[in-house]
Amino acid sequence: MRPSGRDLSEMRAVSIETGVTKHAEGSCLIRMGDTHVLCTASLEERVPPFIKGSGQGWVTAEYGMLPRSTSSRMRREATQGKQGGRTVEIQRLIGRALRAGVDRNALGERQITVDCDVIQADGGTRCASITGGWVALRLAVNKLLKAGDIVTDPLISPVAAVSCGVYAGQAVLDLDYPEDSEAGVDGNFILRGDGALIEVQMSAEGSVFSRTQMDSLMGLAEKGVNELVTAQLAAVQR
Amino acid sequence: MRPSGRDLSEMRAVSIETGVTKHAEGSCLIRMGDTHVLCTASLEERVPPFIKGSGQGWVTAEYGMLPRSTSSRMRREATQGKQGGRTVEIQRLIGRALRAGVDRNALGERQITVDCDVIQADGGTRCASITGGWVALRLAVNKLLKAGDIVTDPLISPVAAVSCGVYAGQAVLDLDYPEDSEAGVDGNFILRGDGALIEVQMSAEGSVFSRTQMDSLMGLAEKGVNELVTAQLAAVQR
Amino acid sequence: MRPSGRDLSEMRAVSIETGVTKHAEGSCLIRMGDTHVLCTASLEERVPPFIKGSGQGWVTAEYGMLPRSTSSRMRREATQGKQGGRTVEIQRLIGRALRAGVDRNALGERQITVDCDVIQADGGTRCASITGGWVALRLAVNKLLKAGDIVTDPLISPVAAVSCGVYAGQAVLDLDYPEDSEAGVDGNFILRGDGALIEVQMSAEGSVFSRTQMDSLMGLAEKGVNELVTAQLAAVQR
Amino acid sequence: MRPSGRDLSEMRAVSIETGVTKHAEGSCLIRMGDTHVLCTASLEERVPPFIKGSGQGWVTAEYGMLPRSTSSRMRREATQGKQGGRTVEIQRLIGRALRAGVDRNALGERQITVDCDVIQADGGTRCASITGGWVALRLAVNKLLKAGDIVTDPLISPVAAVSCGVYAGQAVLDLDYPEDSEAGVDGNFILRGDGALIEVQMSAEGSVFSRTQMDSLMGLAEKGVNELVTAQLAAVQR
Amino acid sequence: MRPSGRDLSEMRAVSIETGVTKHAEGSCLIRMGDTHVLCTASLEERVPPFIKGSGQGWVTAEYGMLPRSTSSRMRREATQGKQGGRTVEIQRLIGRALRAGVDRNALGERQITVDCDVIQADGGTRCASITGGWVALRLAVNKLLKAGDIVTDPLISPVAAVSCGVYAGQAVLDLDYPEDSEAGVDGNFILRGDGALIEVQMSAEGSVFSRTQMDSLMGLAEKGVNELVTAQLAAVQR
Amino acid sequence: MRPSGRDLSEMRAVSIETGVTKHAEGSCLIRMGDTHVLCTASLEERVPPFIKGSGQGWVTAEYGMLPRSTSSRMRREATQGKQGGRTVEIQRLIGRALRAGVDRNALGERQITVDCDVIQADGGTRCASITGGWVALRLAVNKLLKAGDIVTDPLISPVAAVSCGVYAGQAVLDLDYPEDSEAGVDGNFILRGDGALIEVQMSAEGSVFSRTQMDSLMGLAEKGVNELVTAQLAAVQR
Repeated sequence: MRPSGRDLSEMRAVSIETGVTKHAEGSCLIRMGDTHVLCTASLEERVPPFIKGSGQGWVTAEYGMLPRSTSSRMRREATQGKQGGRTVEIQRLIGRALRAGVDRNALGERQITVDCDVIQADGGTRCASITGGWVALRLAVNKLLKAGDIVTDPLISPVAAVSCGVYAGQAVLDLDYPEDSEAGVDGNFILRGDGALIEVQMSAEGSVFSRTQMDSLMGLAEKGVNELVTAQLAAVQR
Repeated sequence: MRPSGRDLSEMRAVSIETGVTKHAEGSCLIRMGDTHVLCTASLEERVPPFIKGSGQGWVTAEYGMLPRSTSSRMRREATQGKQGGRTVEIQRLIGRALRAGVDRNALGERQITVDCDVIQADGGTRCASITGGWVALRLAVNKLLKAGDIVTDPLISPVAAVSCGVYAGQAVLDLDYPEDSEAGVDGNFILRGDGALIEVQMSAEGSVFSRTQMDSLMGLAEKGVNELVTAQLAAVQR
Repeated sequence: MRPSGRDLSEMRAVSIETGVTKHAEGSCLIRMGDTHVLCTASLEERVPPFIKGSGQGWVTAEYGMLPRSTSSRMRREATQGKQGGRTVEIQRLIGRALRAGVDRNALGERQITVDCDVIQADGGTRCASITGGWVALRLAVNKLLKAGDIVTDPLISPVAAVSCGVYAGQAVLDLDYPEDSEAGVDGNFILRGDGALIEVQMSAEGSVFSRTQMDSLMGLAEKGVNELVTAQLAAVQR
Repeated sequence: MRPSGRDLSEMRAVSIETGVTKHAEGSCLIRMGDTHVLCTASLEERVPPFIKGSGQGWVTAEYGMLPRSTSSRMRREATQGKQGGRTVEIQRLIGRALRAGVDRNALGERQITVDCDVIQADGGTRCASITGGWVALRLAVNKLLKAGDIVTDPLISPVAAVSCGVYAGQAVLDLDYPEDSEAGVDGNFILRGDGALIEVQMSAEGSVFSRTQMDSLMGLAEKGVNELVTAQLAAVQR
Repeated sequence: MRPSGRDLSEMRAVSIETGVTKHAEGSCLIRMGDTHVLCTASLEERVPPFIKGSGQGWVTAEYGMLPRSTSSRMRREATQGKQGGRTVEIQRLIGRALRAGVDRNALGERQITVDCDVIQADGGTRCASITGGWVALRLAVNKLLKAGDIVTDPLISPVAAVSCGVYAGQAVLDLDYPEDSEAGVDGNFILRGDGALIEVQMSAEGSVFSRTQMDSLMGLAEKGVNELVTAQLAAVQR
Repeated sequence: MRPSGRDLSEMRAVSIETGVTKHAEGSCLIRMGDTHVLCTASLEERVPPFIKGSGQGWVTAEYGMLPRSTSSRMRREATQGKQGGRTVEIQRLIGRALRAGVDRNALGERQITVDCDVIQADGGTRCASITGGWVALRLAVNKLLKAGDIVTDPLISPVAAVSCGVYAGQAVLDLDYPEDSEAGVDGNFILRGDGALIEVQMSAEGSVFSRTQMDSLMGLAEKGVNELVTAQLAAVQR
């Protein structure tokens, strides 16, 4: 029934390749099927003004899509003079999600910026960005721990995200682009490896939904995040 | 336990005054406690390019805060050269929410823009904007029906929104600003009067949350939206 | 002869409601007929760089129109990426006018920003903004005096403004929108309560004018400002 | 008593050199003492959208200052991403002033843009721009008349402007920069050669003013504009 | 003598991987040592206004660097509200270079946009962009030929570019970042496979140069471009 | 053969008038035939952040064209919200060129900004800007030397620039606009008075070029720059 032939609760193939750029403190290329996102974590020994002197650190994120990551070429945001509303919304989400997995006191007064740049898009880029972004963050923090710059690991538990939705009347896991553009309900679920919920967003797109459907989507999401966390941990241990 | 002395499931006093500006096709001033939002609906006999010729209409929204609607003066967005990320996120949400209550074929090829301008803020401005925005929309559509410009009512069911959150470890309904700034979990729930879910957003702010808490918040939201719909219907029938 | 039926030298009904928002140090909603402007005065314990260390204070103003304050919806300036030329011109005028009524040494090194936001427009918004802006300023200064933060009253005399113009060949006082859009000559007069002139602007709009006409308009303006000052003083004493 | 040694009612030396650039339809370099402005009039066979099809023409103006036209270097507006408030205010004034001397029906559906670029500033740049701008406009219109593109002269009467102010307690004509920066009252007067008033702007800068002072300034302005019109007519007849 | 141990006239290892993204009509990832650039060619059946109706096609380019492609993180241009001067200069150069290898009549009225996004930077990104950009362009044009949309091959000869400079007093080929940042003279040479020169830019950076040095650099460039053309042809034939 | 009737190696008439504005530390109006550029040098006792505390000075440049410097009116960059790509490219080139003639240690920690504003354009504005810009710089530095603010002359040798190109198949010196718009190859050559090369840019515009042509253009450029340096030295000694 799904265009890709997947089962209702079947994720796309996930691959996470680490160490893909020589400059960043942490980096990976995450592939969720045909969605490919390059994630880098950049460490800076400064924090935003609003926490200066607090002893706490900060994790933030930026998101972008290469102009031809999509089926028809998009205009480059730098030439438009600003980031679009969708971009701003997504990068705020990524930052908020990653911070929910971080003990900012243990991180100390430094900032890590996670850049998520979509090389090729096929649905679910914000979820792939969060999942891959955590891997880049983990690698950057490992460097700090190894160097003795911090002593307690500030990462509480992995953070991963997956989209679920109602496609052709059925709850399905990990929407790809053909499904996403047809789905009546679309949800993004961000969880920690310890099962805690970080963010739940469910949105009617053309049709509305019921509490029962909400529960089905939530169940699929928990299954999906479990698989992603396994892939994240395998990637960072290589 | 709540700073305002309200019960856990008690809303703030709601008042919706209609017809507050002479130019707009529909308008109201909604007050949720000390949060006051002026909502106007403006009708235009044109639609965005992407639906031109489709026979369908469009409902969109814009959101703004007066510079001194908040406790300390904010910089005016017009002088900053752009709308901030939060503003863009909120106005996209309002538009999406209202459209979920509209039969766009019945509306016909015309656009209604709902402007939500916060006069005074005390938490929950996006929810008040949606709830008041629907009232303005209803009044503008009534004008179209009365004039015979459309024959079938395009409004399926009222749309209303409320925030719930975990404050001091307890699930509470309709957060005001002192609660909102302390809440560990913050959710916005948009429902229709017929009980259908339009949008659910729950977000960890400092702490994470469990599925049990998610269900409690959802339950409070349903109670709150019921009360708001009653207030909406009373306002438009006056 | 006037569309509203008013006499040539008759003002619209003026009402000034104070204390309309809980956050601002001073606020009022001024209504000149169907022109309604919300004015707030915000106090900040800092001054612009060019007077830092001078011991002098600063009063500045910003002006905006809600998108549907006008008969057809205007584009929101925040979405256009900048304030329009008319907006900038008006807010510079308001700030300059109010400063002419302030002893900046007595104010001390602090800044008061007066925001004038037009809720509903029917001609004469810049004049209403100045008149209402002074009331908000007066209330904010009263707070400073009461708190003992300043000892000498820095407000020399009330500041008020009125428009006059040549409509259908006759000099008339306090133009409303139907008159304003037809007037051949349009003037804005800003005076102090002690009779001193602050700013006089007369502008040909389609026709030119003579010195005799200039004198008639000036005479009407003096009458109008007298009435406005009475309304201002009544409002701040309530 | 004046820094320049001029009499109270003495203008600075005026010189108007025409034909200073080969591309523009009309051009001049106007010098009012040390204030030098290059004015060009550019003809285009199109009009702004709001008068398309009306058979009427349009005259508009733009104003700029070279970065080092002033005593200390100003930032270039093109690098700041926008024209400042003062620039916008001035160019709107120039356009409005010139249009008051034009019969837009006789001009026919075409646009003339007058660019006024300040090469060297020493006070009174907006007045010099209007006076020089009219000369450029006259020359461009002459070209149209000569070519037979229009038959009735659309220029009703010359338009010229001068500043007057209260300096050291005395009403003086044609303020230069040292006077302008000290003046308690500053006025700009735009008149036609036939004596009609186009625009009168008087503004308190530090001190306020009386109706008697207003009349003195007006009298000086009439004297000054007479002299300017003589210079304009001499320049265009050369 | 060179930091990398290379001979004076030795290029870095070049690799060109084609078909790296599924959406673009042509794409490659070019690696010049540690400089990695993703190049995509996007075909659109429209041309810029200035050649509409001419029967000629257009080739243009855009350039960007991922924020962490460099040793310390750069600010994302989309968040700065504009492309920097260096970016604009480079993308204009790439477009001009590629057009010099195209018969725009044979291409027909369509546009190909070549996007060059730097994944990892180590000097010479503009040259790598041109060289890789031509490969993407070649592949996109091949698609048009194969589909029969055009009949005559519009690509005259390969276009490739290499940098040369004076490093530690010696003329060297293909500067990497450590050399580039120390070089006294820096040149970029763009040639066609048939030996024709397209663009030569030599620039003093700290020291000046002589005609003899200019000739040495030119000679190295010819050698380098020959090797690049071989790599380009091998890549597109795979 | 040349539209102007000049010999292949004949420059346009050059004139350099100094001291043309009273505010700038150095200024000149350079005329290369009908190309007229006003150049001013502004001294500031501050440097950009990246060299603060280094003891070194900085020379930078900005470039602009008056809207009607060209045959048809161009839009003013200040109204477009940014400097165009061509403008940015040119002003970076001017600054780089002038710095190559400056000993920045001898200049000391101060900045000189050279503004080049094109009054009338007829080809070769960037070269005229560099040549005239050096004269303005020389005069500003002379003032510093005279005042004893610096003791060693920081100007190594004059800097001048000329364009050459292939027009109608022939190498010609100093392209004017009719030649520039037809030229198949266009080059800009920046040299010092001591013969050292600063920047060489040769660009195919429609046709490509050979090394022999490159050498011819270079030879013409050396001849042209010699003549310009003579004119520069004459101008600054007057």
